[in-house]
Amino acid sequence: MTMARIHCHQIAPVIGNRAANQAKAVTAIAASASHGADIIVLPELVLSGYMFESSEEVRSLAVSPGDAVFAEWADAAGDASLVVGGFPELGEDGGLYNSAAILDRHGIIAVYRKVHLWDKEKLYFTPGVQAPPVIDTPAGRIGILVCYDLEFPEMTRGIALGGADLIAAPTNWPYEPRPDGEGPPAVTIARAAARVSRIPIACCDRSGNERGQVWNQGTSIIDSEGFVVASASDADGVATAEIDVMASRDKTVSPLCDAFGDRRPDVYTQMNQLTAEFGSTVYPRLIARRLAT
Amino acid sequence: MTMARIHCHQIAPVIGNRAANQAKAVTAIAASASHGADIIVLPELVLSGYMFESSEEVRSLAVSPGDAVFAEWADAAGDASLVVGGFPELGEDGGLYNSAAILDRHGIIAVYRKVHLWDKEKLYFTPGVQAPPVIDTPAGRIGILVCYDLEFPEMTRGIALGGADLIAAPTNWPYEPRPDGEGPPAVTIARAAARVSRIPIACCDRSGNERGQVWNQGTSIIDSEGFVVASASDADGVATAEIDVMASRDKTVSPLCDAFGDRRPDVYTQMNQLTAEFGSTVYPRLIARRLAT
Repeated sequence: MTMARIHCHQIAPVIGNRAANQAKAVTAIAASASHGADIIVLPELVLSGYMFESSEEVRSLAVSPGDAVFAEWADAAGDASLVVGGFPELGEDGGLYNSAAILDRHGIIAVYRKVHLWDKEKLYFTPGVQAPPVIDTPAGRIGILVCYDLEFPEMTRGIALGGADLIAAPTNWPYEPRPDGEGPPAVTIARAAARVSRIPIACCDRSGNERGQVWNQGTSIIDSEGFVVASASDADGVATAEIDVMASRDKTVSPLCDAFGDRRPDVYTQMNQLTAEFGSTVYPRLIARRLAT
Repeated sequence: MTMARIHCHQIAPVIGNRAANQAKAVTAIAASASHGADIIVLPELVLSGYMFESSEEVRSLAVSPGDAVFAEWADAAGDASLVVGGFPELGEDGGLYNSAAILDRHGIIAVYRKVHLWDKEKLYFTPGVQAPPVIDTPAGRIGILVCYDLEFPEMTRGIALGGADLIAAPTNWPYEPRPDGEGPPAVTIARAAARVSRIPIACCDRSGNERGQVWNQGTSIIDSEGFVVASASDADGVATAEIDVMASRDKTVSPLCDAFGDRRPDVYTQMNQLTAEFGSTVYPRLIARRLAT
């Protein structure tokens, strides 16, 4: 059993103030590194804030993976810590991407460009076209998704089938009204994704009030059974948990059941082909009745 | 707006007593039909009970879709009601299937053989090989899944993409210990499936104590936002809700987002192909770093 110590920092970035945001990020990384964290997760777009008003504003805040900000993150990470955090990326093609970097003390290991852009992000960013990375690290195989990606079961399932032991997910979950007594739906979705693929998920949300927008403050470290084992008690708090990340390679769900072994790709392909061919799998009632008898 | 009145009967079948179970099923159907239900859902294996001790026991309780029990269900359904309920099916091939029928007053419209068998079901039943049916009815397009099927996002997503407006899911959810204050994980999974595909799900669980096994009694009618709008307050109670089933054809989730329109099959295919070709999408750290810089 190899326990990984996971820290998620529910930081409140200040829109447009990269220096202040970088200082918060570095302080968070250094604090967690000094407490022996193995994996440190920061929010989506932690370097810039989120509620942009124009593409020009995004461009003025965007950085390339070669930027010195990441060398500072790497220095703060120290020997044992991996960091996953979000930033507005200025691509070598001049495009703007909503990206997340994974890095260690040697610097960036991989950059993921968010594939599913939420709402007005579509006005400012180009969606990623590459599958999310799954990186083999001493703390386990870490897969990266960003926020709205989690709401696509194809992504959470795909990255688990792709060998991830843990999903690290920087998020910025805008608050939405919900019935009394209910938690954020985004957390319900992440919990279900964790449970059906028996994979822990570390969601690092943000806090603060930005241009009138408030947030779920839904930071949640979810175990492979889909239970929230840590959340951030304060607005800008830290969720911490120790999780046996590699244990998620065992997909046993009952004496005779296995979450992956029980999959039926033959039937999934059939469903997809029917839908592709006919636009749907809907049977008119009479045809169905004829087939049934 | 066309509201569909949905009733889910959390019946407690008696293992092995088909006559008693049939009487409970017919009483439930007739009661709901008299209250104007459009869609009546009964539990998985409502005709037989669940905690079998041998294949012979299953065989002694199995019926074919042509059996008179379904004519009685159809008679009880009346003019407006559709019924979805589970039964142990004796196939024309002699096989035993954990099946669900959808029927109206004219009789069976379609039979679905459960594709994902849970635990000891594997000892007694043959898994289905056909995609689940989606049936066009006056109350909307009804897709059918059974219990453990719901834990495979490929199924819930696939049936929604296949055109279902509502998933009707007979279940038998064995009780599992869970942390204080938590609901059944199976309900969390169904809620997330509903929300990510913006499709209501009517889960009809069972009650009773059968050979020492108790149940979640998790009957839940879930709306297309993933909130539970009705559950069964008593062990053998009825959950009832009116839902604008066809409204789920609108997959809007924000001014600029659509749950289906935002899907990225290009990336999902990429992930699946990488996993198929290399066994995983895991990058060794050094290769990832080289690609990133």
